[in-house]
Amino acid sequence: MELTGPRWKGKGFAATALANPMSKIVSQLQSSLLQSESCALILGSDVLLEADQEQADLLNRACFGRPIITADKEKQRFQLGLEEAFYLFHHLKCLSILDEDKRLMDDGALWEYMKSKRKTFSNHYMAYSHLRSKNWVVRSGAQYGVDFVVYRHHPALVHSEYAVLVLCEDGDGGNDRLRVWSDLHCTLRLCGSVAKTLLVLNINKKGADDRLPSCLEQYYVEERTLKRWIPEQCREDQMARS
Amino acid sequence: MELTGPRWKGKGFAATALANPMSKIVSQLQSSLLQSESCALILGSDVLLEADQEQADLLNRACFGRPIITADKEKQRFQLGLEEAFYLFHHLKCLSILDEDKRLMDDGALWEYMKSKRKTFSNHYMAYSHLRSKNWVVRSGAQYGVDFVVYRHHPALVHSEYAVLVLCEDGDGGNDRLRVWSDLHCTLRLCGSVAKTLLVLNINKKGADDRLPSCLEQYYVEERTLKRWIPEQCREDQMARS
Repeated sequence: MELTGPRWKGKGFAATALANPMSKIVSQLQSSLLQSESCALILGSDVLLEADQEQADLLNRACFGRPIITADKEKQRFQLGLEEAFYLFHHLKCLSILDEDKRLMDDGALWEYMKSKRKTFSNHYMAYSHLRSKNWVVRSGAQYGVDFVVYRHHPALVHSEYAVLVLCEDGDGGNDRLRVWSDLHCTLRLCGSVAKTLLVLNINKKGADDRLPSCLEQYYVEERTLKRWIPEQCREDQMARS
Repeated sequence: MELTGPRWKGKGFAATALANPMSKIVSQLQSSLLQSESCALILGSDVLLEADQEQADLLNRACFGRPIITADKEKQRFQLGLEEAFYLFHHLKCLSILDEDKRLMDDGALWEYMKSKRKTFSNHYMAYSHLRSKNWVVRSGAQYGVDFVVYRHHPALVHSEYAVLVLCEDGDGGNDRLRVWSDLHCTLRLCGSVAKTLLVLNINKKGADDRLPSCLEQYYVEERTLKRWIPEQCREDQMARS
């Protein structure tokens, strides 16, 4: 199956998305969190955020975290993943984060904490922020055995277009994938069957010391999309025709 | 999707398979090759075998190799994979094999040659012969990013039931798969979508020296099938009902 663009989930959804750009929704979320001086609480590998009605709506529309169902109608709680929380904290600078003793965490402490929770954190965060800052919606790819899946707009409107694997040449903190052909075949075959393109993000650290989050400014991300080569679809006569 | 047994490709195919057991077809092939003192020629990573009409029919029905299309109607040529050729040579003892200088190869020389062509050969052969000797039909799993796919009978009659990965604890000659969760998720998700069960064969060498094929007698194969755990399908009430 050749992908020719986003697969919208319904008629008119492309227009809805166009009229409500993700960049604008995220800006609104940023303003709202800033204005209320929002503060989230870190608990293990999750970050909990209380939100009022407006913020809950914006978090849902911008696709950050998952709402936790409670009886309280006024306040909603959201469970943010590590990358999501660090993106709101470090990139959008619209969220403060408290440690388990309710003390405010600074940039360096939060970075250290998150890296200690998951050894892939710095690479995954780099990939996450790279994609989010280009206004893609980024969610976990666990269901497909990849690191992330990426949507052009809200998952209610459109199917995810890319399955993302995050690799890193230094080996440490990478996810040890695509080292053998059979793994690549398996991944490409699965991506094909769920109509996604495999996007491999290679985090190039250029020897930067990752003890402080300022290292992120030195990282850069190489992007590659990978596809199966299907001989029948690549014949000369077909190429001549197209 | 829960698998409940083989998926036959047509009505009555199960009965056809039952009436023509694979063990019998393989025995007939063995007798026929023995009687004609068949001799195959090794060329790189392929083994070429000339077959008369009867043998070509038996090779096709037993699913060994692939026929090479030629103009000659009397003699057909088959291209055997390394595992297939070694199985006919070493396990069924019904085939001789010539090297590129047309000299007969003995057990040790052929074993060495094949290991030199592919570092995974000894593990893959162990898995192949383990499954073949239980009368499963074993074909390449490259299309699905696994080592083999396994059929209950001829692929014309039935879909393959298992996708096989061959692992080996000593690392060397293994295929470096399933070391990270995301690879496992990816593989299981793909297997689910193509209605196969993932069969992991772990080759336990017990420290045997693999310089001679006699090491195979000391190897043993641990079999595990792996499935996704789908919470909705594993609720208590459902378990009580079944």
